[in-house]
Amino acid sequence: MSLNFQLEAQEGLARAGRMVLPHGLVETPVFMPVGTVATVKAVPQDVLEELGAQIILGNTYHLYLRPGYEQVRILGGLHRFMSWDRPMLTDSGGFQVFSLSDLRKLTEDGVTFRSHLDGSSHFFSPERSMEIQIALGADIIMAFDECTEHPAERSRAKQSMELTLRWASRSKTYFEEHKAEVPWRKVSSFEFQVSTESKHCHPETRNPKLETGVQSLFGIVQGGMYPDLRKECAERLVEMNFPGYAIGGLSVGEPRDLTYEVVNATVPHLPQNKPRYLMGVGTPDEIVEYVAQGVDMMDCVLPTRAARHGLLFTSHGKLNIKGARYALDEGPIDPNCGCKVCSRYSRAYLRHLYAANELLAQVLNTIHNLAFYLDTMRAVRQSILLGDFSRFHSEFRSRGLNSPAHT
Amino acid sequence: MSLNFQLEAQEGLARAGRMVLPHGLVETPVFMPVGTVATVKAVPQDVLEELGAQIILGNTYHLYLRPGYEQVRILGGLHRFMSWDRPMLTDSGGFQVFSLSDLRKLTEDGVTFRSHLDGSSHFFSPERSMEIQIALGADIIMAFDECTEHPAERSRAKQSMELTLRWASRSKTYFEEHKAEVPWRKVSSFEFQVSTESKHCHPETRNPKLETGVQSLFGIVQGGMYPDLRKECAERLVEMNFPGYAIGGLSVGEPRDLTYEVVNATVPHLPQNKPRYLMGVGTPDEIVEYVAQGVDMMDCVLPTRAARHGLLFTSHGKLNIKGARYALDEGPIDPNCGCKVCSRYSRAYLRHLYAANELLAQVLNTIHNLAFYLDTMRAVRQSILLGDFSRFHSEFRSRGLNSPAHT
Repeated sequence: MSLNFQLEAQEGLARAGRMVLPHGLVETPVFMPVGTVATVKAVPQDVLEELGAQIILGNTYHLYLRPGYEQVRILGGLHRFMSWDRPMLTDSGGFQVFSLSDLRKLTEDGVTFRSHLDGSSHFFSPERSMEIQIALGADIIMAFDECTEHPAERSRAKQSMELTLRWASRSKTYFEEHKAEVPWRKVSSFEFQVSTESKHCHPETRNPKLETGVQSLFGIVQGGMYPDLRKECAERLVEMNFPGYAIGGLSVGEPRDLTYEVVNATVPHLPQNKPRYLMGVGTPDEIVEYVAQGVDMMDCVLPTRAARHGLLFTSHGKLNIKGARYALDEGPIDPNCGCKVCSRYSRAYLRHLYAANELLAQVLNTIHNLAFYLDTMRAVRQSILLGDFSRFHSEFRSRGLNSPAHT
Repeated sequence: MSLNFQLEAQEGLARAGRMVLPHGLVETPVFMPVGTVATVKAVPQDVLEELGAQIILGNTYHLYLRPGYEQVRILGGLHRFMSWDRPMLTDSGGFQVFSLSDLRKLTEDGVTFRSHLDGSSHFFSPERSMEIQIALGADIIMAFDECTEHPAERSRAKQSMELTLRWASRSKTYFEEHKAEVPWRKVSSFEFQVSTESKHCHPETRNPKLETGVQSLFGIVQGGMYPDLRKECAERLVEMNFPGYAIGGLSVGEPRDLTYEVVNATVPHLPQNKPRYLMGVGTPDEIVEYVAQGVDMMDCVLPTRAARHGLLFTSHGKLNIKGARYALDEGPIDPNCGCKVCSRYSRAYLRHLYAANELLAQVLNTIHNLAFYLDTMRAVRQSILLGDFSRFHSEFRSRGLNSPAHT
């Protein structure tokens, strides 16, 4: 069993669905917190569970460099390594190779690059990315793609898209031949009976589906900012029959209207009965917009990264907790938020923690921002199930959440 | 009502007791985690509660500089500011003035010093320290003392002790005249009825004792490393009749045997029926030793600071989680520890988090070390109540917890 996706409700293009994966259920639309190197920065796993995170993302490039995929494989895969027994997704490593590493050399075969950590030389190809992602063992893994730079001429975008398509095919071929090697599938019950030294809860022993489960490989639509290339790429990927499709190469510096236009031009060419994942977006109001365009899954570092810089998302807009105006403010970050931070701590206290550069500032700010994103997506999903999304959407839009809060 | 201290059991010099304070019960012997600037670094308050921390410490010097005691007073005191409704203790600021600040100028009146943060000039005196500590509103506050440097000639130690005694008297006089000004005592129920804007739980509304409660001011025994001066200082403080007594000026660079000797020379001159607080110690095996010498309360930055440097305390000794030997180690930090970190995460994962400089390393390491200290002190207390402390003490001593773990 890999992926079972069922639509529960639709309103306009917006969809609510259920996706069953080897490590459990994901209710869509869903926001996936980013756990770059096997940790959603500053947040313990039990708090992520409390927050209702159903699926988190790991970054193949980062995990390959540190701790290394062989180490994670030996330790039973990423779920067991980080003690997270709910679904996970890994990206292909392509985006980080293009955005973080130095001295890239791209050939038909793959990409040679230097680590941003120590300058050491490495090589990623579709086969290599699959090998690594199988070792990591996320429920959903991504085909190795080239993230086309922006701006790009049409001819360059087309050439890049063709490479992404050939790499998608190579990714699929390697994956089909090697998917049985995922570490959690190979674990026999005998091995667990003898491994009693540690008191750890092994997620693998709690989920019988893992015995027969396989990962799901998603294809990634590229094509730059050209709607016709996006259409072509989507159609040719659909012919390869992936269990789900991602839209990549967006949020790379283009204006937001153009992102919407490209998403709009791509979604109609993706199958109704399979999940659609828009990679690397966005602000709270953007994620609601993309649901309205028919997207089911999103991920973004924004809630976690912004939190570490003191930028908090609220139902009244953005709030910069550094502000001196909060020094004597006894109210919570967001009076409409029921998270454990808003239930307990004042703006005055959080402002003090941030000003004093205390670790607890980063912990609490991150918990609040993730709660805000996850609560927003749950409200979106609920409104679709109730046939009330259109009203929810226009109300949400009128709030202008990208503006500063005036409270 | 200020402090009600009852002994429950004694074995040799070791004592188990109960101390009732305005914000609740403290069972002694007790270890107090240090929350320097209104946060035990990296640990949310709900986790401290889960860990069973009954009382935490705040640093007057740090809080005076940031966020400032006027701000904390306006916000209802430290308990309400940081949302911690269990007992707290603040130190006098003396130790940090002497150890952290620049350009100190000491007179009979007090100390002029420069902030380690921005070089600004400030003045602390016994009266000023009391004013600040009353504004912060901890359940237990400390007389302003001079922490005698080590080594110090006898004449210098004597002169410093005499100053500490005069300052203790001035601290007590100011405190007695101003103790009704503690912010949580002044809060009327009317004020709370109209303050409905915030969803915060105000600790003050949950504890009727606060209406009549007062802080307790402890005296501090100084006298350098001279047993006769320690005896004299203790006796003269006892004449002033404080509700509890601290032993200060230790752990300032002297050999550990000398610390034991000075504690041993001081404790017999403190009253049986009042709590004894040894300031700023120690390692896990040291805290057990000091209980054996008749100490009831201790605080130390060691568990939290060491955690942030990857040094973990275990029942087998110290463990440096950076070690490459842990890269594939699926066991918990300490197989004998039941804390939430040991129950869930492997050494391999914690080693990875530390090596990758992840915030979660500091969070989880700190939680484990605090659990180890608090569990150790609970076990000590239990053994005294059961009349089993002598056996516990010699077993604990034979474990040699200051050596590296060999596991």
